[in-house]
Amino acid sequence: MASALARILKSEGVEVYTCLAGRSTKTVELAQYSGVNICPSSHQLADISDIVLAAVVPAQAVNVAKIIGKNFKGLYVDLNNVSPSTVKEALHQISNGKTVDAAIMGSVTRGESVPIIASGKYASDFAELNRLGMNIEVVGDEVGQASAVKMLRSVYTKGVSALLFESLYAAYQMKIDDLVLKYLAETEGPNFTELATSRIKNSIFHGERRTQEIGEVLNFLSEYEDPLMTQATFNFFRLIVDQVGPIEKKPDDYRELFRKFSEK
Amino acid sequence: MASALARILKSEGVEVYTCLAGRSTKTVELAQYSGVNICPSSHQLADISDIVLAAVVPAQAVNVAKIIGKNFKGLYVDLNNVSPSTVKEALHQISNGKTVDAAIMGSVTRGESVPIIASGKYASDFAELNRLGMNIEVVGDEVGQASAVKMLRSVYTKGVSALLFESLYAAYQMKIDDLVLKYLAETEGPNFTELATSRIKNSIFHGERRTQEIGEVLNFLSEYEDPLMTQATFNFFRLIVDQVGPIEKKPDDYRELFRKFSEK
Repeated sequence: MASALARILKSEGVEVYTCLAGRSTKTVELAQYSGVNICPSSHQLADISDIVLAAVVPAQAVNVAKIIGKNFKGLYVDLNNVSPSTVKEALHQISNGKTVDAAIMGSVTRGESVPIIASGKYASDFAELNRLGMNIEVVGDEVGQASAVKMLRSVYTKGVSALLFESLYAAYQMKIDDLVLKYLAETEGPNFTELATSRIKNSIFHGERRTQEIGEVLNFLSEYEDPLMTQATFNFFRLIVDQVGPIEKKPDDYRELFRKFSEK
Repeated sequence: MASALARILKSEGVEVYTCLAGRSTKTVELAQYSGVNICPSSHQLADISDIVLAAVVPAQAVNVAKIIGKNFKGLYVDLNNVSPSTVKEALHQISNGKTVDAAIMGSVTRGESVPIIASGKYASDFAELNRLGMNIEVVGDEVGQASAVKMLRSVYTKGVSALLFESLYAAYQMKIDDLVLKYLAETEGPNFTELATSRIKNSIFHGERRTQEIGEVLNFLSEYEDPLMTQATFNFFRLIVDQVGPIEKKPDDYRELFRKFSEK
């Protein structure tokens, strides 16, 4: 994710640095591929940067902010996939207070136009990067809003994936899955079938990561209501991971996954 | 439902009869309005009819079939909103075996073109009524398939209503519901916002009936899998009915329902 953004900024002539201490092999490879400059430490990175974009695994969001935060003079943007309360905790570590809550709303592989939303008093400073090929929309002046929009969208999209699986897995056993998809498409719109089958395949392929993400969403929602549906979505993804386990390749036909699921 | 179908058939010159013994005041009024002929008893109705369309409350589906079934010579079509196993039980009462499982797939108020799906060996006989203004599609040759398609569609649509409520109720409390709807519309399609807000309003307005329908779906799904999502959908609708109770008028703005929900 970060390396794709780095490539966009580099192509616009921005000097991009990263620190690879303690990062995964995949992150190291992607950083080398994108050709960014490497800093030996996060402290040094903070010293020479005008803007820090933090994009790490959710569990490291607060730690990274602690390391950068003490003497950093620039703008700190949290791009991590974490809940509003974790964002607030992370941004609280940045002593100059120049912080932005941001969330990537699409796939980075689509290129320069990947939509990012941002909130907080300094979000418009971050949105200056739109002149350098980025696609940032300021959605509010409070930290937490951008992350919340992303999480609440995923309540819906991940829940829908689970509903589709539940409906079509029974339909598959009765050999009427084509019919159910057809009649759903009549109310849900012409792209429904393609989106639906891709969602079923992704549910299983990314099951492990989805389960973790929904766990984070569940904690967040519990502050506002009794999240009956999201609890079920979480249980569903956990069941999928337990029953099917990691799969190496996304199958062409969603029915292959149903077969696999029914065999366990 | 039945009275609307009766009006279509009458307008095509078909002689339509009904029996009103033990029916609700609303059904009696609708029958009088549609101008169908009244039979004093179901036995007599069976004697004079070539086709019986059974459209009663779910709890009466099997009883009505018992009353009609013994000496009926014609085609018996179960249009009731019941599970495949209930349809099978009902149709088993029709001793001549000329039976059709059928399901209304849209709103009857849209007029003649309301889509109906039908299954079973005699479904194509029922589809002959397409020459008389009806819109029947034969979807399979087994009784139970048409009802199953309708139920599995509702696993999705009713679950989606519950997901929307859960996501947007938290968003409403954070005053970012417009943003969540906007970003969902970007992946879900241009009609998303209208469909979504209408689903939230309908969830509460028809909460009582929805809860009963999902109870029926839940029993059906349990034969095929552990219905985690549909169980949550059922619990959600029960909660809505308990917290908000029946409302007299569908509000213009879905936020009114969130206000009502948060007050309880």
